Amino acid sequence: MSDLPRIVRTVADLRQQVAAWRAEGLTVALVPTMGALHEGHLSLMRQGAEMCDRVVATIFVNPTQFAPSEDLDSYPRREAQDVAALRAAGVPLLFAPDVTEMYPNGFSTTVTVATVSEGLCGARRPGHFAGVATVVAKLLLQALPDVAIFGEKDYQQLQVIRRMARDLDIPVRIEGGETVREADGLALSSRNAYLTAEERAAAPALHRVLVEVAARIRHGAAPAQALADAAAVLEDEGFGPVEYVELRDAETLAPDPAPGRPGRLLAAAWLGKTRLIDNIAV
Amino acid sequence: MSDLPRIVRTVADLRQQVAAWRAEGLTVALVPTMGALHEGHLSLMRQGAEMCDRVVATIFVNPTQFAPSEDLDSYPRREAQDVAALRAAGVPLLFAPDVTEMYPNGFSTTVTVATVSEGLCGARRPGHFAGVATVVAKLLLQALPDVAIFGEKDYQQLQVIRRMARDLDIPVRIEGGETVREADGLALSSRNAYLTAEERAAAPALHRVLVEVAARIRHGAAPAQALADAAAVLEDEGFGPVEYVELRDAETLAPDPAPGRPGRLLAAAWLGKTRLIDNIAV
Repeated sequence: MSDLPRIVRTVADLRQQVAAWRAEGLTVALVPTMGALHEGHLSLMRQGAEMCDRVVATIFVNPTQFAPSEDLDSYPRREAQDVAALRAAGVPLLFAPDVTEMYPNGFSTTVTVATVSEGLCGARRPGHFAGVATVVAKLLLQALPDVAIFGEKDYQQLQVIRRMARDLDIPVRIEGGETVREADGLALSSRNAYLTAEERAAAPALHRVLVEVAARIRHGAAPAQALADAAAVLEDEGFGPVEYVELRDAETLAPDPAPGRPGRLLAAAWLGKTRLIDNIAV
Repeated sequence: MSDLPRIVRTVADLRQQVAAWRAEGLTVALVPTMGALHEGHLSLMRQGAEMCDRVVATIFVNPTQFAPSEDLDSYPRREAQDVAALRAAGVPLLFAPDVTEMYPNGFSTTVTVATVSEGLCGARRPGHFAGVATVVAKLLLQALPDVAIFGEKDYQQLQVIRRMARDLDIPVRIEGGETVREADGLALSSRNAYLTAEERAAAPALHRVLVEVAARIRHGAAPAQALADAAAVLEDEGFGPVEYVELRDAETLAPDPAPGRPGRLLAAAWLGKTRLIDNIAV
């Protein structure tokens, strides 16, 4: 086991290993990531290991889901550390392709998902979810796992991927993994590494206000007022701009969920040069 | 065999039958069609039977590839005749879903292919190739065949599908099937049924002018002049409007193919209320 994970760089090698496992009757879970692995990612790996016989991690910082103004160049890349973390977690296979393996010359196809991609992060990051849907479709079809697991931290992304996989009839089960948090409530994120000490101290307010809004709504407060108050609190805490604090249908992400439907509170806000997102059930 | 083809209406039943064949070690060819089967379609079924152990035909008149102004409502539908033709051809399985099986409530995903979708029919039929790419991605992922076969008669469509399947890493081989023609050269098409007797008499000119252009280009004529002459001849023969007569790279469909690259001559023109297309190698 000490040589694990085996690292493959090509779709052909990935398929060969998955096919060999299938031939043995083993089931396979895929956990796509952009690397800079933290405990949140590793909890998805463990979830995969509970659900299936073998886990395949992928690390690919997908350029097509970053807008030109975004942090593609500065996004943390540290494969050696990631490999060590996967080894410690007992993950047997890492697929870490380069950009030309994923997008060879002449690549021309885009998968777009309407409805769940609209609003929230979709409104602020044009093309982001098309980039996500396209690369995830590819990863799912390259590996053809039984299950693929994505963190609920990126809740809208999870719903976009669920919708895309169902709509295109990709024969895979999509599972969400619960958000892992620091002791003070801050959701783990590779982008937390961007925060200064002062910003890091303020950052847990994002989760705290969501918990407060959820409590107020459960106790009968009007959602619109609670959400507006939450945005104001975030600004007082040093966030700005606050992109959104919204209540949505937990599955369709439609605004103003119907009574009896599960809801989801979602927020995105900047803290200095770092954009943080979080969400909780309500 | 007299009960064949077995007709399935749901993705679940389709997958069950294909999985049963796979479990026996059999290979599967998929031949997607919109029905109104003619000898062109049946030649694809025979090609599938030569390449694989089992052939799955699909019949689905896909609404998303028709523009509002187009012939979705009048497109010929005659399943009983199609089933008889498939029976005579020895095809064992027909997948004929209804629209709600393919596009259930909440369906939101679109697959678009840039470059090869642009120009030619793509310029005249907005959204057409997105509709084609999306439904074909679904059919390929529903059946997961070894091979899928599409007629070269719809040459741009074939290139769009090749590009889409390659870009999304769909694990299937895409094969083209040669255009089947009437004795006078007219390419078989379900839409030929729309032609009046007079139009039917004029229709073979479409193929004839392509053959003439190919011969002139092979003998050193300037393509631009030969193509313009061809359009003029079609108008003399009663076609109008002539949408395009163009020379393209046979694979990328880029205009002005580089010397030494295989070329393709493609044309689309109206004859009365019927839009005809054709293409040949050059």
